[in-house]
Parts: sequence; C-alpha cells; structure tokens
Amino acid sequence: MKIKNILIAGSYQSDFYPFLKQLEQYNLRFKSTEIISQEDMNWADTYVGFAPHENFEPSKVKWVHTFNAGVNNYLAISGWDNTLLTRTISDFGEKMSEYCLSYILADLQCHTQFQAQQKAKVWSVKSPASLKDQIITILGTGEIGQKIAEVFSTFGATVNGISNSGQDKAYFNQISNIENARTILKHSNYIISTLPLTQNTEKLLNQHFFNYLNDAYFINVGRGKVVDTDQLLDALNEGKLRHAVLDVFESEPLTENSELWQREDVTVTPHISALTDIDDAISCFCNTLKKLENNESVSNQVDFSKGY
Amino acid sequence: MKIKNILIAGSYQSDFYPFLKQLEQYNLRFKSTEIISQEDMNWADTYVGFAPHENFEPSKVKWVHTFNAGVNNYLAISGWDNTLLTRTISDFGEKMSEYCLSYILADLQCHTQFQAQQKAKVWSVKSPASLKDQIITILGTGEIGQKIAEVFSTFGATVNGISNSGQDKAYFNQISNIENARTILKHSNYIISTLPLTQNTEKLLNQHFFNYLNDAYFINVGRGKVVDTDQLLDALNEGKLRHAVLDVFESEPLTENSELWQREDVTVTPHISALTDIDDAISCFCNTLKKLENNESVSNQVDFSKGY
Repeated sequence: MKIKNILIAGSYQSDFYPFLKQLEQYNLRFKSTEIISQEDMNWADTYVGFAPHENFEPSKVKWVHTFNAGVNNYLAISGWDNTLLTRTISDFGEKMSEYCLSYILADLQCHTQFQAQQKAKVWSVKSPASLKDQIITILGTGEIGQKIAEVFSTFGATVNGISNSGQDKAYFNQISNIENARTILKHSNYIISTLPLTQNTEKLLNQHFFNYLNDAYFINVGRGKVVDTDQLLDALNEGKLRHAVLDVFESEPLTENSELWQREDVTVTPHISALTDIDDAISCFCNTLKKLENNESVSNQVDFSKGY
Repeated sequence: MKIKNILIAGSYQSDFYPFLKQLEQYNLRFKSTEIISQEDMNWADTYVGFAPHENFEPSKVKWVHTFNAGVNNYLAISGWDNTLLTRTISDFGEKMSEYCLSYILADLQCHTQFQAQQKAKVWSVKSPASLKDQIITILGTGEIGQKIAEVFSTFGATVNGISNSGQDKAYFNQISNIENARTILKHSNYIISTLPLTQNTEKLLNQHFFNYLNDAYFINVGRGKVVDTDQLLDALNEGKLRHAVLDVFESEPLTENSELWQREDVTVTPHISALTDIDDAISCFCNTLKKLENNESVSNQVDFSKGY
C-alpha cells in the first residue's frame, strides 16, 4: 500500500515528536477531532486516532489506524469495503492481568474485612485463601484472555476458558463454547470477561448466563455492553453473583444516577484496566505503516466478520 | 534416632486422626499445653506443638518439633545441647508471596483512590502503575524471601535482596549485606521484611535503617520485634516511609491503645500472612520422624547459631 498524507486526529504533536524522523517521507496533518473538515478527509489517505470524527466516512481513506485495542466506535460506521482498519496491540494483557489479580488477591486476602477490623481495633484471625485452590473462568481466549490465563495458572489456579470455537489453548485447563459451559460456570469462583463488543456478544451476559453461576465473583475488563447491567444487579441480589468489579460500562462515563456507584458488592473503576500508553500506540502505528509500505501482512488488522 | 513416646501439646486428636495409621508403632499422648506435667515430660522422648509449655526443659526430650516456621518461642529457652529442634516447612513462601502481592498490587492499582471516587460518584481516570516498573527489596533471602523474589521477578519487577552474606541467589537482581545496602534502599519503591527474630535482627529496622529510605512502602511478614515501632512511626511522619503493611508486631495481639490501629498510612493484619495449616504441619512432622528413624539428615533442623 502506498501512503502519503496522514491525518492525525487529536493534539498529538508533542507525542509524535520522537517519531518524526522515521515519518519524514510523509505529510502529517494534526487536527483536533472536532475541527476535521471534508477538505482534510479529501487530502488524507490515512486516518489515525482514538475515535472517528463526526460524519466520518471510511471510504475517504485507504487506511484507518486506531490507538485503541477495542474498535467498536469505528465498526459502528459502515462503508469499510475498500478501507483497511488496524488497531493498537500493546501490553494490554499484562495490564489487565495485574488489574484482575489485584482484585482477586484483595478478595482472597480479606482486605475489606481486615480494614474493618482495623477501624474497630479488633484482632481476629482469619485465614486468607490461596490462588491454587481457585477455579477461574475467562470469557474470551484471545491474546488478552490467554495472558490472564497464563498469570493465574502460574499460581496453580485452575483456569477455564469460554470461546466461540471451544478449541484448546495453552494455559487453560479446559475451554468450552458458551452453549456447553454450564458445568464450568457453576463451579467457578471467579469469572473474568475479556469479550469484545460484537453482534454476538452484545448483552450476552444476561439473566440466562448469570443463572448458571453460584455465588461467583465477576470482573469485566472487556466491554460494558456485553453485560445487561439490570440483570447483573438482579444476579447480585439473588446470590448468583457475590461481587462485581466493573471497569467498563454500557455507557461511559458512568452516569451519576447509576445504582452501581453506591453498592457495596460492586467495585467501579473508570475504564483504566488497560489504558493505552500513547507512545506504545504511536510506535504500533509506525510499525504497521512500515509493514504496509513493504506489502507485508499485518497481525493487527481488524477482521470485520469477527468484529475485532 | 529411636523414638517411642510422643507428647503432642494441644488438642489435636481429630487433626492427627488421618495420620494414626502411619504412627501406629508409637505411643501418642495428647495433652493441652496448660496441663502438661513433669510426669508427661519424664515419659516423653519427643515433644510436638506450636509452643513450649510453662517450665519447658528441652533436655527432658530427645526431639522437639514445632508446628511453626518461626522458632523464637523455643529459642528463648536454654538447654538444647542434646536435643534436636525441627520446624515446620510448608508453603509459607507461596502464602506470604500472595499476601505481599495483594498489597503491592492494590497500591499500584489505586484501590483506595478508586474506592473513594466511587463513594463520591466521581469518574476520574488515573493510570495504574505496572509491577515491571517497580524496584522491590526483600530483607532476608532464605526460602521464603527467595519465593517472594521469584513471584515478583516473574512480573518483571527489579528485585533486590539484603542478607547476612550478601551472596548472589536466583531471582534476585542483586543482593547486598545491610552495611552496603544504602543505594539499594534509597531507590526501592517497596521493602519487604521476611527477617526472623535473632540477636542480630532485633530492632534492626530502626531510625538508622529507615533514614536510608525515600518514600518507600514497607511490608513486614517476618517478625515484629525486628522493627522499632516508634521509629517506624517517625519514619512515616517524616516521609521516609509512605505506607506500612504490618502483619507482625512487637507484641501480639496488638494492644488496643497502639497508635498503629488508627493511622491511614498503616495497614494492620492479625498475623495471618502464613498461617500454618495443621494438616501440613502434622504431615511435616511425620516426614521428619520417618527420616530420623532412618538416620537421614533433616532439612528443617534449626541451626542454633543462626537462630532459625
């Protein structure tokens, strides 16, 4: 692919500075998303940024590279027949693993209980539980899900996976498709969703799904719209779920009137489990650009039939 | 060594039940520590339990096995010239690793801040920090310290050690003796003490030690008397320490009037980072007994010159 004019959506001049040398053969135009015009899009053959501008038309450019791992904001727009879409691949798996591990360990080590005891000046021994005795089920067995599986299996936890194909993969004890996951889900102490938002996953985690669970602790680091939040609250009320740690929501930022904020059995974090480091994102863009120039295949190309 | 009469200090009849078959060639006597008599001690050639009874004389028996990893309660008594002392070796390293990891990850992942934001219904993005960017220094590079080093180095953290000998060991980036540890300590984000209580370590972590630190986060999973608590509080007040997670104390249970309970920069847990699972402890006793009967060497024999 021949690229000449690159439109960068957002004020990333200073972030791009260290990369300008390797981009010197290209024309770069930096514009805030709100002020991108038709003329800009007519000029550009590549569009780079976290989000499409208003009235974005994929067909105007040859290539779009998003700084995100998730691409549903771009997929919501049609007209990709002749336009390549690539996404940022970074150490999201490592980041999300540490996020999940932090909450599961805090739970096993009784942080909340010991905090309450300290406040009340009470010395009362309770034995923490070990990761090796836990059954952890990960929804989504792609690069991120597999990294999380690797981390937990290192500690001796039994890690199961749920995927479309149900095919075996390293670090998983067993993998099932969702239709046959009933037994796996029933015995899981912890459930982690890494699912992307696609037509197949929207509200996949609903009453039907939660009914399989048995006092489980749920973590969502994937996409918020994969969960039916009202039915998640029902599952908490009915004891199907014991606790939910949510980093992603049906709508973000979470609205002030959401019930989630004030529940003790819900932990809310502001979509931080795998923030894109802008340096990593630009570096991934430059590497992808080089491969495209050399007509090499790119591993971060979005598969529209899968939606990620 | 020939063993016949085993005195078990404590009400562990039901815990020993699964082990009775392999102990059928021995005479077992179960007695609560408080009611152990001179006659019991005259009868026994082996004493097993968490603690010595009042007026305990090591010379009365050939062998003492403690259910603990720490042995300072036995070492406080003199007269071991002709008596073997062994201790329980269990998965203390794994347990303490998960304890330390839970608090360090909770800190890196800003649990406290996000909890406060949730309470205030505030959506404010803050990027968690990664383990790979942390410098962690472990005091004590024995079995437990080394296991903790292994866990943190798996995540890419830079792990330093401080030991008597200063000799290199696997999983440590570098190991120094305490006299030459100034630079290591100055740059450490996290300090973990696994030090046993010996003549050399009593109040080793005092003003002189804390003065080397620079806004560090301190965890004590070793022994409480290794720390001068008043000087630890000074170090917190002066910003040498940023936070202290204490599982062990100069006197336990922690007294109600201790300042530690009410400080926000101190986390108090009731000596639970490596509780002995009684099954593991009995199993370790039986294995040690078998080795002694076969005149094999035992790796859990206490070295009185080292004090552990």
